[in-house]
Amino acid sequence: MSVYSAEIRLETQGNDDIHDISEAVSERVEESGIKNGIVNVCVIGSTASVTTIENESGLRGDIKELLEELIPSSKDWRHNSTWDEGNGHAHLRASLIGPSLTIPFIDSKMTLGTWQQIVFIDSDVKPRSRRLIVQVIGE
Amino acid sequence: MSVYSAEIRLETQGNDDIHDISEAVSERVEESGIKNGIVNVCVIGSTASVTTIENESGLRGDIKELLEELIPSSKDWRHNSTWDEGNGHAHLRASLIGPSLTIPFIDSKMTLGTWQQIVFIDSDVKPRSRRLIVQVIGE
Amino acid sequence: MSVYSAEIRLETQGNDDIHDISEAVSERVEESGIKNGIVNVCVIGSTASVTTIENESGLRGDIKELLEELIPSSKDWRHNSTWDEGNGHAHLRASLIGPSLTIPFIDSKMTLGTWQQIVFIDSDVKPRSRRLIVQVIGE
Repeated sequence: MSVYSAEIRLETQGNDDIHDISEAVSERVEESGIKNGIVNVCVIGSTASVTTIENESGLRGDIKELLEELIPSSKDWRHNSTWDEGNGHAHLRASLIGPSLTIPFIDSKMTLGTWQQIVFIDSDVKPRSRRLIVQVIGE
Repeated sequence: MSVYSAEIRLETQGNDDIHDISEAVSERVEESGIKNGIVNVCVIGSTASVTTIENESGLRGDIKELLEELIPSSKDWRHNSTWDEGNGHAHLRASLIGPSLTIPFIDSKMTLGTWQQIVFIDSDVKPRSRRLIVQVIGE
Repeated sequence: MSVYSAEIRLETQGNDDIHDISEAVSERVEESGIKNGIVNVCVIGSTASVTTIENESGLRGDIKELLEELIPSSKDWRHNSTWDEGNGHAHLRASLIGPSLTIPFIDSKMTLGTWQQIVFIDSDVKPRSRRLIVQVIGE
């Protein structure tokens, strides 16, 4: 059993910018040399999240529309009075979806569906340089 | 330390069909022979999810009603123009709840509450044969 | 590789009472003596959840308001007819956010952002004594 730590770095545009990170995570699993186990992907920061979707443009648009309806960016969230960044909605979206995702892998291959991609959603209101930690554990 | 990989197979009805998989996960933990660790349960596919609920019929009805209110099945989601399956809402529901759940276990027993069951929610619009991967890690 | 099991105990007030447990989780990771790995934090019970937020009072207020809007406490949820506790909304809130969170750590330090805290949200309708299991795995 061993642990392999790696990172993914992304330049994002904000406003629910969605990045497919499946390939990047898959590469980290392969380079770990670990055959069977789990991989945990976790974003550093509280205005972005990780989940799986079928990564096609229609659905990416649907997610943005849904998040805007459920958690409006225009609402006068209290957080916007604490800091002058106007990203209260981004924090709420990120907390609801969650910052961390764990996926099994067998024979060095993640057990995801053909139309199931790991995506990073940056809900912040401006471009950001992001770091995600990829922790691979297994044997 | 070791890793034990197993599966759960389910025949589901779709439309937020909720299955209690606590017993199945518990069996996989026991047959692994691993005493202390974590178990990760992850669905293959992007229209179903895993979480915990108190598994009683009232609450199962409440979850279906809530998901229909927050993410209506009748709405003209963009995804429904990409593919002709009419399951855009199912993708969104699954991404929001999440495809993967990790639970600790001690002395081969998961540390869940008496009224806390692991459930698989199939949000797709038709019956499906589902596979979940159960990855047990520990010592 | 080894596994270290610990607990966090909390006295909570309910109604989306939010507790910052970052320090408590961090202490469990340090006392484990494990240098690199993942830590899983999981609540026992189905009316509370774990996620990350920037833990400041404005945002804590925003989360409470958002949960009340999306999943109203006043609604006549079916679960409230099953049991006479009036906490159907608490179950739904907890299932949506999720009971379990996994965070990587490197050199005994969790890889979280400066403004990213691990929080426990108790959505139940009365004060409770809560137990969370903290499972540390790594080498």
